Amino acid sequence: MEPSTDPNNSNNAVANPNVHHHCMDMEAEITAPEVHKVVAPPPRTTLQKLKSRLKETFFPDDPLRQFEGQPRGKRFILGAQYVFPILQWGPHYSLQLFKSDIVAGLTIASLAIPQGISYAKLASLPPIVGLYSSFAPPLVYAVLGSSRDLAVGPVSIASLLMGSMLRQEVSPTKQPLLFLQLAFSSTFFAGLFQASLGFLRLGFIIDFLSKATLIGFMAGAAIIVSLQQLKSLLGIVHFTPQMGLVPVLSSVFHQTNEWSWQTILMGVCFLGLLLLARHVSMRRPRLFWISAGAPLLSVILSTLVVFAFKAQHHGISIIGKLQEGLNPPSWDMLHFHGSYLGLVMKTGLITGIISLTEGIAVGRTFAALKNYQVDGNKEMIAIGLMNIVGSSTSCYVTTGAFSRSAVNHNAGAKTAVSNIVMSITVMVTLLFLMPLFQYTPNVVLGAIIVTAVIGLIDVPAAYAIWKIDKFDFVVMLCAFFGVLFISVQDGLAIAVGISIFKILLQITRPKTVMLGNIPGTDLYRNLHQYKEAIRISGFLILSIEASINFTNTTYLKERISRWIDEYEAEDVKKQSCLRYVILELSAVSAIDTSGVSFFNDLRLALEKKNIELVLVNPLGEVMEKLQKADEGNDLLRQDSLYLSVGEAVASLSSSLKPAARV
Amino acid sequence: MEPSTDPNNSNNAVANPNVHHHCMDMEAEITAPEVHKVVAPPPRTTLQKLKSRLKETFFPDDPLRQFEGQPRGKRFILGAQYVFPILQWGPHYSLQLFKSDIVAGLTIASLAIPQGISYAKLASLPPIVGLYSSFAPPLVYAVLGSSRDLAVGPVSIASLLMGSMLRQEVSPTKQPLLFLQLAFSSTFFAGLFQASLGFLRLGFIIDFLSKATLIGFMAGAAIIVSLQQLKSLLGIVHFTPQMGLVPVLSSVFHQTNEWSWQTILMGVCFLGLLLLARHVSMRRPRLFWISAGAPLLSVILSTLVVFAFKAQHHGISIIGKLQEGLNPPSWDMLHFHGSYLGLVMKTGLITGIISLTEGIAVGRTFAALKNYQVDGNKEMIAIGLMNIVGSSTSCYVTTGAFSRSAVNHNAGAKTAVSNIVMSITVMVTLLFLMPLFQYTPNVVLGAIIVTAVIGLIDVPAAYAIWKIDKFDFVVMLCAFFGVLFISVQDGLAIAVGISIFKILLQITRPKTVMLGNIPGTDLYRNLHQYKEAIRISGFLILSIEASINFTNTTYLKERISRWIDEYEAEDVKKQSCLRYVILELSAVSAIDTSGVSFFNDLRLALEKKNIELVLVNPLGEVMEKLQKADEGNDLLRQDSLYLSVGEAVASLSSSLKPAARV
Repeated sequence: MEPSTDPNNSNNAVANPNVHHHCMDMEAEITAPEVHKVVAPPPRTTLQKLKSRLKETFFPDDPLRQFEGQPRGKRFILGAQYVFPILQWGPHYSLQLFKSDIVAGLTIASLAIPQGISYAKLASLPPIVGLYSSFAPPLVYAVLGSSRDLAVGPVSIASLLMGSMLRQEVSPTKQPLLFLQLAFSSTFFAGLFQASLGFLRLGFIIDFLSKATLIGFMAGAAIIVSLQQLKSLLGIVHFTPQMGLVPVLSSVFHQTNEWSWQTILMGVCFLGLLLLARHVSMRRPRLFWISAGAPLLSVILSTLVVFAFKAQHHGISIIGKLQEGLNPPSWDMLHFHGSYLGLVMKTGLITGIISLTEGIAVGRTFAALKNYQVDGNKEMIAIGLMNIVGSSTSCYVTTGAFSRSAVNHNAGAKTAVSNIVMSITVMVTLLFLMPLFQYTPNVVLGAIIVTAVIGLIDVPAAYAIWKIDKFDFVVMLCAFFGVLFISVQDGLAIAVGISIFKILLQITRPKTVMLGNIPGTDLYRNLHQYKEAIRISGFLILSIEASINFTNTTYLKERISRWIDEYEAEDVKKQSCLRYVILELSAVSAIDTSGVSFFNDLRLALEKKNIELVLVNPLGEVMEKLQKADEGNDLLRQDSLYLSVGEAVASLSSSLKPAARV
Repeated sequence: MEPSTDPNNSNNAVANPNVHHHCMDMEAEITAPEVHKVVAPPPRTTLQKLKSRLKETFFPDDPLRQFEGQPRGKRFILGAQYVFPILQWGPHYSLQLFKSDIVAGLTIASLAIPQGISYAKLASLPPIVGLYSSFAPPLVYAVLGSSRDLAVGPVSIASLLMGSMLRQEVSPTKQPLLFLQLAFSSTFFAGLFQASLGFLRLGFIIDFLSKATLIGFMAGAAIIVSLQQLKSLLGIVHFTPQMGLVPVLSSVFHQTNEWSWQTILMGVCFLGLLLLARHVSMRRPRLFWISAGAPLLSVILSTLVVFAFKAQHHGISIIGKLQEGLNPPSWDMLHFHGSYLGLVMKTGLITGIISLTEGIAVGRTFAALKNYQVDGNKEMIAIGLMNIVGSSTSCYVTTGAFSRSAVNHNAGAKTAVSNIVMSITVMVTLLFLMPLFQYTPNVVLGAIIVTAVIGLIDVPAAYAIWKIDKFDFVVMLCAFFGVLFISVQDGLAIAVGISIFKILLQITRPKTVMLGNIPGTDLYRNLHQYKEAIRISGFLILSIEASINFTNTTYLKERISRWIDEYEAEDVKKQSCLRYVILELSAVSAIDTSGVSFFNDLRLALEKKNIELVLVNPLGEVMEKLQKADEGNDLLRQDSLYLSVGEAVASLSSSLKPAARV
């Protein structure tokens, strides 16, 4: 009975297997139980296998699918659209869309300007670099990026990381020019590294930062960043250059004489204002503009207050004079050799990965909300090129910022034009409004940073992790406390190391479970999970739940021999005897040469005990390798290889009968 | 129908599922298809889970099983026997066994004496240290070791590694005493490390050296060792201290003026004799004593020749005077601090792991032949303690040697008493026979080493690996060429790194395959592997063949969305439409928090396309975590969770029918 492909008939086709099956069973009762053969997949050459493996590894999303079967001209257009997504949406751009984008763009600009200044200070860079970084990179991203919601610019975590890593070797106060050069060079390497990852389709590297790691890391970093703000919030002049929880707190409480009550008062007021605005917007997402506008409002208000009361003479530190004008070129400031090359490459690598992770995650989050695709590798190239361009136009590391992207999305951004609007607004600021920031107090910038990073501490997510997976929770805690007490980059490294170790441990110690028959079916399931499942006397049915490779063959040998010993110890009481060990291999997706010897060794060991080894449902690759290795011995004899446990048990127990009668 | 546990009735019980199943199917046709519920395993506390996880990780063989339910006195005896296996076999020792053991012991002693001297020279140590190392460690092993066939003593690979690593910092000719001290210290750390691995039940670390890695490494090391022997075989005086293929060969061919024809002649003769003996014994295992006795015979013959012709005055270099007497104590020579501590710890670690790997592998090989168990972790403690004791009695790293153990086995060794016999023979040699070795030419020692290591080049095994698994072959080549052209330890490190990378890549890119129904059954199998399997219209049935965790959720999302796109592209032609995506999770043994979010994200994404997500057979841990995470949303609704694909398709297509009729 061939399945019908006629859609009108599809219900029948679906119901067929059952009917068909039923007929077969009828026959099966008359003759011997029916057995289906296990076959290997059709043979392929090594080259074909390598090709399909490489495709699965580097092009799982098959980005060139759309080009197939298209005429040449169309292919060229599709190719250009693939490289420059602006060509995709640009032609259809309308006034309607522009109206939405201009509102969103102005909103995020009002957030980007104070945050840019603040984050640059966090990275120990001149405040104006933060504004430069909000001007050039968004323009690049608008052309190359495929996310419609990402608002790009400097972000807190990358700023913190870059500042803290560079400060380990160079002092930003004693050698400001060198520090700036190193920051630009690190940005260049970050961009180069990001673009290469995307170009080489190695985007999966960022997947090794698990959600648990990131939550712990972000929370730790948020606290470190907030602690750094105690300098401006309390008005301390001689602050420790270290980042850890202990040195910062000890520095704060040893310098109580430097605390300035005017600064503290101002800080508390504006921090309260900003937190209130944040709270309101979180409660009512439609009021997003309150928290979006609050930072700029605070800057304006506080600047007016300082200006009016001449507060800079009363212990409140201010930004000071800022240079007017657009980004100066900086390609002659990049270090490609010399003694700091290692430092800038390392800094670029780590800030590059972290900012990439944030940018991609944010892009994917909003793409999922609006139901469009973001190609991770393409985004990496876009973010990477943006940073390479940035590094030669006086910008430091930028990426898609979570808070600003959320505001962008809520404000109704439709395309990357909102980034262009933001960029132009920042340009106008750079050209004409810089003198206005002269009296902006540093304390308000500190308050803005604290408000921005406080959202990175995600307690509900941490609780959910605790509930679902205790090990992930431990990983999270390691990242968190590592960042707090050791250092930002070491905390991250420890958490990643532990996560990978966990996976290796899972492979080294794969689960083996005993299966039993679910009454009334042909199904065999875990006896521990399904209490109604029953053991079949004379059979030990084990399921191996992982690939078999060199890391676990020794373990599997020991574990299976323990299963057999335990089974036999029970059998002695019951006076029955073990005849067959059935290995259900449905979950063994791959084996290597050690895995192949494992089966041979096991078969020999069982033979000595007069027990037969039966394999059930080896998957394609496993079957293929067993077949190749099986010239000469008989691991794959017809009576020791079945397609399902049910068939194996039925067939073997029917052959048991005559033996029992003899 | 309850299954019978009566053994006489077991055939019926076994046949039952099928009969039962058949009845059920009959009913199924009349009413709705029967559906079995997926349940989570019985709840356990975190502590219980941790406990069972730790047990599976560290005590998979459950070594304390035998103690259960035994009275106190018996337990004590069992415990003592567990720690000192000699107490297990000692009481039953008989004259019969001793007759076998004494033959085997004398045979391996005749091999151990020349090999001990040769291997010590390979490690750049005084020849007598090789004999010391064949005296004390075997006695310790006889008491603690659980293998009956292992012949312990110095081995070629560990000697080569220790020599080459220590020579990187200290010259054995310029600072012989310091070099000796460092060798003993490295031995101490090797032993400490080995014993700790066993004591902490971390024996699985050596499993990370896969068979492919070891074959490549051994072959490379054998060539390096043989090349080193060109010094003695050609009689070169000024030999390069480097180990690589290139420097050694260039040194050999730049010093042709130092070649001594007398040495070469003698070398060729004895090498031919030894290789011939080896060949005969390999052809006829019963003639093992030919290759076992050949080295000692060669030493005696060559010594006589040198003595008779006064060949030491004709360009043949000899060992020279050796000190008589037993092992002097050396605990005061161990370095526990100072500038070489790092070096000796590193050397100890690497030689420790490598010699452990050899010892355990050899022990397991012969245990499997004679059908007894060798507990890996216990063996590690035995080998470790043996080296710790060795380091304070002037011995360097020792382990179970493959070639001597094979001879031991063939010579009929029954227990570890053969090691004691060997040890006593070596003792007699040390006390009385040392002057006889004065005139032994170095060239014959070189020939003995070459003959011993040539067996490490295992071409048939390499060919088998090539046939079965191309990637393993690449790993093997990396180890081989890394050892030859970079360095012994780097070659090993590269190969291990690549093997682990392969495993991580497998996890990052798990296979997803499309399943189809095997006609005439309820089974669903890979469409690519089983050509007769048929697709069910309206259903996309995918099997995920790996744990779902943070490293692969992104990939899986992309890959599944590509499956859907491809399916829909085909469907457009057929005018049918995709209604259900069924994920068969039988091979997903674990998930983490990222995996849980993956399912939720996927369900939401599919909902937007009006496709329903159906999960089939989530295993215990997966079910548990999904349940914990599922408060509030409906991933685990009854109509989207089935025990088998067959039931899911039957049930869902019966619910499709009315919808189609509307």
